[in-house]
Amino acid sequence: MIQLSQDSIIKVQGSVSSPKGFIAKGVHIGLRYAKKDLGLIVSEVPAVSAAVYTQSHFQAAPVKVTKNSFENDSFIKAVLVNSAIANACTGKQGMADAYEMRRLCADQLNVDPEMVAISSTGVIGELLDMDKIRKGINVLSETDPGDGHFEEAILTTDTKIKQTCYEMTIDGKKVTIAGCSKGSGMIHPNMATMLGFVTTDAAVNEQALQKALSEITDVSFNQITVDGETSTNDMVLAMANGCAGNQPLDENHQDWNTFLTGFRMVCEDLAKEIARDGEGATKLIEVRVSGAENKKEANVISKKIVGSDLVKTAVYGTDANWGRIVGAIGHSDAAVSPDSVEIYIGGQCLFKNGEPQSFSEELAKDYLLGDEITISVELNIGDGAGTAWGCDLTYDYVKINASYRT
Amino acid sequence: MIQLSQDSIIKVQGSVSSPKGFIAKGVHIGLRYAKKDLGLIVSEVPAVSAAVYTQSHFQAAPVKVTKNSFENDSFIKAVLVNSAIANACTGKQGMADAYEMRRLCADQLNVDPEMVAISSTGVIGELLDMDKIRKGINVLSETDPGDGHFEEAILTTDTKIKQTCYEMTIDGKKVTIAGCSKGSGMIHPNMATMLGFVTTDAAVNEQALQKALSEITDVSFNQITVDGETSTNDMVLAMANGCAGNQPLDENHQDWNTFLTGFRMVCEDLAKEIARDGEGATKLIEVRVSGAENKKEANVISKKIVGSDLVKTAVYGTDANWGRIVGAIGHSDAAVSPDSVEIYIGGQCLFKNGEPQSFSEELAKDYLLGDEITISVELNIGDGAGTAWGCDLTYDYVKINASYRT
Repeated sequence: MIQLSQDSIIKVQGSVSSPKGFIAKGVHIGLRYAKKDLGLIVSEVPAVSAAVYTQSHFQAAPVKVTKNSFENDSFIKAVLVNSAIANACTGKQGMADAYEMRRLCADQLNVDPEMVAISSTGVIGELLDMDKIRKGINVLSETDPGDGHFEEAILTTDTKIKQTCYEMTIDGKKVTIAGCSKGSGMIHPNMATMLGFVTTDAAVNEQALQKALSEITDVSFNQITVDGETSTNDMVLAMANGCAGNQPLDENHQDWNTFLTGFRMVCEDLAKEIARDGEGATKLIEVRVSGAENKKEANVISKKIVGSDLVKTAVYGTDANWGRIVGAIGHSDAAVSPDSVEIYIGGQCLFKNGEPQSFSEELAKDYLLGDEITISVELNIGDGAGTAWGCDLTYDYVKINASYRT
Repeated sequence: MIQLSQDSIIKVQGSVSSPKGFIAKGVHIGLRYAKKDLGLIVSEVPAVSAAVYTQSHFQAAPVKVTKNSFENDSFIKAVLVNSAIANACTGKQGMADAYEMRRLCADQLNVDPEMVAISSTGVIGELLDMDKIRKGINVLSETDPGDGHFEEAILTTDTKIKQTCYEMTIDGKKVTIAGCSKGSGMIHPNMATMLGFVTTDAAVNEQALQKALSEITDVSFNQITVDGETSTNDMVLAMANGCAGNQPLDENHQDWNTFLTGFRMVCEDLAKEIARDGEGATKLIEVRVSGAENKKEANVISKKIVGSDLVKTAVYGTDANWGRIVGAIGHSDAAVSPDSVEIYIGGQCLFKNGEPQSFSEELAKDYLLGDEITISVELNIGDGAGTAWGCDLTYDYVKINASYRT
């Protein structure tokens, strides 16, 4: 779908406030014990925006309210996010709280409520402490932007902030695309308990931005899995405020592919950071599948493998147990010809022609001791290729999730 | 599908050798370190038999060979099973070994090879040690039957043998149905690394037995999950040797429902025992879904819930975290009306009308400290009902699977 042209795209130190015309803030308002828990991104001018949302039947109140902000047009000036409480499954009071949260933020910024998106992440089924939210929005308006503050404020069980930034040239202008994300458990397809925020100073056509975000989400955020779960609150939001001064981008623009590639690199970085920071994870696992009947089946199989608890525990145990990869491939609905499958870990071929291949267990173990593991599968059926990311399954995953809420 | 009529069905102490005309044995031949690893069930007369197999793309050699035994007719006199080595993904040599294993057993019993079914379970991708198998089959022929020996010989990471037995009256004759199973990891739909063997002295029509086994498997073995995985070697085999002397059973027989109910009780017991003995498990979790659009969707949702790592860790942590149940329901493809969903744990209602319900956390915690946990979900859409079984996810699951092969 996307032609890569990475020559002119440079990764730089930066954050969602690096693109021109954006600021980002974060404060501690007491929803979490000590860490920042309320964050805000503001564009100095209304930004063409796009969003993708959780596919869960149970969409949280803030998701519904943000959808409402996009009902009339796709311009957004700010996004307000709290962590600790998801405001999901909270009925009418939850909806009222979400609308109030949006309105208070809009009032502070002196814009219509529909110019504000909101997002929440945390425990399901508890009401927001609206006194803290109300005071917090006031505090936020008086607080200076600070590096990493927004990025911290959106975290829950994450162990670190996740951000990335790229620069490129479009119409001879410097364009910056940056992003941050959160998420480390309840992560599977459709962006389970994950949030992603992308800012850019590029000018982008509305429909083109939404289409690009949807397509890129499918091969980045939707290709990560930590535990096969989907949350009620997932959202990825992209804001393009045009401050770079380029001609509005769409598919007919000569630099469209440059933009698209930069956009994808941002989302892929953020997705991989989420997988790497999966609850209890010690390793990032990348699974590349090629030779599938088509791209979709390659994506399905790669995600099946990276989502297998048995593969995940084997990687944690530095055990090149390719039989578990066979197990994961075997029970997918995708087309598979067992005798044509080849499985590689760290460059060594472990399985081919329907039979185990002799390989160095020692080299495989050394490779699996690293913190970035690549598993490659060649199906030899067609030319579909796809990649998925996940992490190992460890004692700490169980520890975190057996004791998270209480 | 099945009308229950349990009045005349009695659970008794017994094993696969309890039905008339069956014997069962198990010996240690050195595939496992110390435990029995080769087992045999023999019927004194050829038994009408039926089987269901793994849905994996990668069917192990013994699965293919057993399918071959059913090609011409459905009569089987014996089933030979080894543990430790799955003989899966072992190419031509694996097929040759499987055929030899079947032939040697048939020779000992003085029957055609097609009268013998074989089955293997254990590590994928390693060849059988055929010297041990050859000697083992001889040893087996000279060994006396013993209580629990077959049941032990089929185990891998299982912590205990799994068996059940029921008696009922058909045509005025006493009929016994018994079974045993193995499986504790790589367990999900389609009977991942699980084996089940059912023996009965009832006379049963061939087609009726296969149909009954397939239907009962769908609501018993196919409704358990330990880790979402499917194996290369799964098989459930039922043998009906007619020694009870009843008129052959089929759907037109007046006692058909009695037989079917007993058969289902055997399979449900065995399935639940597998879930209860899931790798590292401390609790059996039963999830009952009612009010779904149809039976199939109820089965899908119940299995989704019981398969959720987050639900499993919450149960392990005795945390009535119904938000995770919402999460699991939310990302199923089945029809769900969020505001109509009701969630119950141990009789307390936790979620209803789209809102959390007040409940006693203390009572819930007490309940979750037990070793059999029931979660009930009422969808209030239709009249489809279904049940699934699984277990909690614990540190020991990770321990077992991070170190199983090496």
